[in-house]
Amino acid sequence: MTPYLLNCWYVAAWASELASGARMRRVLLAKPILLLRSAAGAVAAISNICPHRFASLSDGRFDADTVVCPYHGLRFDMTGRCVHNPHGEGKIPERAYVRSYPVAERHGAIWIWLGNPDLADPRLIPDFGFLEAPSATVRAGGHLVTKANYQLLCDNILDLSHADFIHATTLSTEGETAGSQPQSRVDGDTVIIKWSFDGKGIVMNRSTSNPQDVHTELEVTWHAPGAMILRSESNPISNEDSNVTSASGHKRIAAHIMTPETEHSTHYFFDVNDRRQLERAIQIFESEDGVVLEEIQRNMGDQEFWDMTPLILSNDRGGVLARRVLQRKIRHEQAELSQTEPHETLEQSSKSSNA
Amino acid sequence: MTPYLLNCWYVAAWASELASGARMRRVLLAKPILLLRSAAGAVAAISNICPHRFASLSDGRFDADTVVCPYHGLRFDMTGRCVHNPHGEGKIPERAYVRSYPVAERHGAIWIWLGNPDLADPRLIPDFGFLEAPSATVRAGGHLVTKANYQLLCDNILDLSHADFIHATTLSTEGETAGSQPQSRVDGDTVIIKWSFDGKGIVMNRSTSNPQDVHTELEVTWHAPGAMILRSESNPISNEDSNVTSASGHKRIAAHIMTPETEHSTHYFFDVNDRRQLERAIQIFESEDGVVLEEIQRNMGDQEFWDMTPLILSNDRGGVLARRVLQRKIRHEQAELSQTEPHETLEQSSKSSNA
Amino acid sequence: MTPYLLNCWYVAAWASELASGARMRRVLLAKPILLLRSAAGAVAAISNICPHRFASLSDGRFDADTVVCPYHGLRFDMTGRCVHNPHGEGKIPERAYVRSYPVAERHGAIWIWLGNPDLADPRLIPDFGFLEAPSATVRAGGHLVTKANYQLLCDNILDLSHADFIHATTLSTEGETAGSQPQSRVDGDTVIIKWSFDGKGIVMNRSTSNPQDVHTELEVTWHAPGAMILRSESNPISNEDSNVTSASGHKRIAAHIMTPETEHSTHYFFDVNDRRQLERAIQIFESEDGVVLEEIQRNMGDQEFWDMTPLILSNDRGGVLARRVLQRKIRHEQAELSQTEPHETLEQSSKSSNA
Repeated sequence: MTPYLLNCWYVAAWASELASGARMRRVLLAKPILLLRSAAGAVAAISNICPHRFASLSDGRFDADTVVCPYHGLRFDMTGRCVHNPHGEGKIPERAYVRSYPVAERHGAIWIWLGNPDLADPRLIPDFGFLEAPSATVRAGGHLVTKANYQLLCDNILDLSHADFIHATTLSTEGETAGSQPQSRVDGDTVIIKWSFDGKGIVMNRSTSNPQDVHTELEVTWHAPGAMILRSESNPISNEDSNVTSASGHKRIAAHIMTPETEHSTHYFFDVNDRRQLERAIQIFESEDGVVLEEIQRNMGDQEFWDMTPLILSNDRGGVLARRVLQRKIRHEQAELSQTEPHETLEQSSKSSNA
Repeated sequence: MTPYLLNCWYVAAWASELASGARMRRVLLAKPILLLRSAAGAVAAISNICPHRFASLSDGRFDADTVVCPYHGLRFDMTGRCVHNPHGEGKIPERAYVRSYPVAERHGAIWIWLGNPDLADPRLIPDFGFLEAPSATVRAGGHLVTKANYQLLCDNILDLSHADFIHATTLSTEGETAGSQPQSRVDGDTVIIKWSFDGKGIVMNRSTSNPQDVHTELEVTWHAPGAMILRSESNPISNEDSNVTSASGHKRIAAHIMTPETEHSTHYFFDVNDRRQLERAIQIFESEDGVVLEEIQRNMGDQEFWDMTPLILSNDRGGVLARRVLQRKIRHEQAELSQTEPHETLEQSSKSSNA
Repeated sequence: MTPYLLNCWYVAAWASELASGARMRRVLLAKPILLLRSAAGAVAAISNICPHRFASLSDGRFDADTVVCPYHGLRFDMTGRCVHNPHGEGKIPERAYVRSYPVAERHGAIWIWLGNPDLADPRLIPDFGFLEAPSATVRAGGHLVTKANYQLLCDNILDLSHADFIHATTLSTEGETAGSQPQSRVDGDTVIIKWSFDGKGIVMNRSTSNPQDVHTELEVTWHAPGAMILRSESNPISNEDSNVTSASGHKRIAAHIMTPETEHSTHYFFDVNDRRQLERAIQIFESEDGVVLEEIQRNMGDQEFWDMTPLILSNDRGGVLARRVLQRKIRHEQAELSQTEPHETLEQSSKSSNA
């Protein structure tokens, strides 16, 4: 099993998923996490497992910004510190805390840092500012859990040619993406891939009632380990057709963000331009991409992707570059972790910083 | 995985679960067992797996005090000996038997000895005589299977403070058990823990229509590895209140007996004062304790309890003492087993004593 | 886990299961296989996993005798060779193929060779010619998947005495098969076992309205690793009863063929004389044999049959002989495989022969 990248920001939830005074359990990178939002609106994330008898804190009450363990009533504040022990004389032991995780609410999402908390700099959050731009007031965010490794879901977006086959009937594409020669490049911890072609375009980006040929530009920017921005633009080709104004062009931007739930399942956060488009996107993903991706995961079982010696085609360029960047970062991080003192692991050092 | 304690009596079933001429399959300590009661009322326990082709004997008929294998008709008596081979000349091979286990019917329960049969002394059965006392004619026994390790279920009874939280709404407790300082002690292979407090008491022990303050005494006696007696008594505090006679006090006794089904599931045998109370107890346990205990087991997975470094509070005293006694007994037993002759294990020696 | 015998023919499907232009996924010996039949009626078998991104080819289209991967549109012909790459310049890499397996359509079945393709000689297919004999025009073939190892299913047919117990009420047998002394012998890679007895016979072979005593002959011929022919014949005993002509005798022949799906599940192909008999056979097998065989597999878990030291009775003779023949053949084959060059396995050598 490939380790996860730890020292980075992951999207834990859309901000809109967690109302004031609400709590939500979510497994992230195989860790059971409890997301909390105070009455005043502040967000926090702590381990969901009570350190006393290992009950799930999400099964208890959350009131007055504290979580009460359902089993024996230990009460924890939003930093994970035990603030009330109802037993005997009520002394609170030094070890009575749950691990807390740095979080940041930005761009309409709750981001979490599951690695060394000392390194959790919110400036490292990738720029998804378009999600909160004034013009984006009607944007709609979705969340799905897909039973496939997060890198398979990244690959899916990094190779949009799949639309020509998986979505052939629903998006009515005609092989244009596959047929074009995308340009890709690595820029630090990002991978950018661009497609440019003439033809019908993809149906989400054109009026179905106007099957005129268009020029389409698609661009995916991947930020390690799994946050992607998909920009698309279509414009009529035929300048001589005076009936078509430039207003008939389409320009869209969408978020596709993958957070590992476990080795074999992924939280897929996506955000499109409006609610109608969201419902359509969910329907198409679940019945087309999701079916194939989950079948691929079943076919792979516990095997590693590269150990299966995949056949590499020209359309894999973006996904392969992203896998290489991620692999390099994970190796680098694991090497650093192994150089820390023998008996201090990342887990322990961050626990002690909480105590 | 911690080994089970083998040389001790476990409850396999309530006596009332097995009518004359009936059979019942039950997994105990991960072993498939077939419980049998003869037409005349005698009880026996044998392995449920046919030694010929490994069919489950419980799928065959049980008549004339013999079990018939459903697959090829081998017939076994209640001692596990093959008494009929319908094939060819009908010769019964020497190895044609299933292991039998010592059983004893006592105190309304069927007790089974899964260790060395030479050591199975019925005098070692703990005293649950109250279950068969004349005044107990209307007692009612229940059986539940909970998907959690049996020690977690023992912990649950050995720390009654959990009622203040898990059962806050159903038993209307008010933190009195948690707030009191229980007294606990080890006496040989038993652990005794007592709570004593003034207040509303617990609703099962008081009349809900009379919310007068009472003095409550609770006592749990644990017999290794998992048979517990819970005694409770409540009496009005205010002597000056002439309307209250001593008859308004309550005094109850109940059995809570845990037998491992597997490492991660438990047969919970309990016996309360009447049928109405039994139904209420089942309802409360399944929707409150059971939910939390099974979630704890999921959170623990295959990890051992102590390896997870649980936070120990004052209310854990009884459970911790019981775990220590059990651990000591298991280590002692395992050390003895490893000193037997190299090629003779407990399993083999008891098999050969059957042959 | 015991390895499978590889260099032999297995039934993959009845020929009638695969229409012209149709495809069918089936797991055989734990390998995901795609069975294909061209528009003109030719049969082929290839791996069901696309070498590019490991999607299941059975989720894609099959037209013009080519399979299209549902994910990125790679197109494969019936030999497993990629014949179209819709991406970029469309170059087809040398490694763009899926493994193909030799198949042969014979005796109404599709046989597959999962071992070294150089050794796949159709003359090695056992003779099930009766399935296509002119008189067999109304024969009916069935297919069931049973969650038990294929050797357990072979044992079931190789010991027909089980009918006296499992089928006691449905086939109304009376212990005659168990009571008789079958004759068994090994002939190369086959095992033949015969029963001969007087009595009621088995109900499938007699008229229930005529409970006259008959002489019954049963014969099972097992071809390694799991193809069996069951011949049965019953004739009236009483020659003095002039009302009974020789026409009242019954003579039947049936196929019982077991192909491993996985270590713990089996494709059971059977073929009986007509459709009414087929429905009855399915009903009896599923509710009687199947229930016991799947329970046996659960009782065995991952243990090997011989490691559980089964008690051997006279009726096990046929099954034991077949297990010995199969074990010898598997050991021989594995020994040969380990003598091939260090870095070339059977899998690789057959892949390269495909490229």
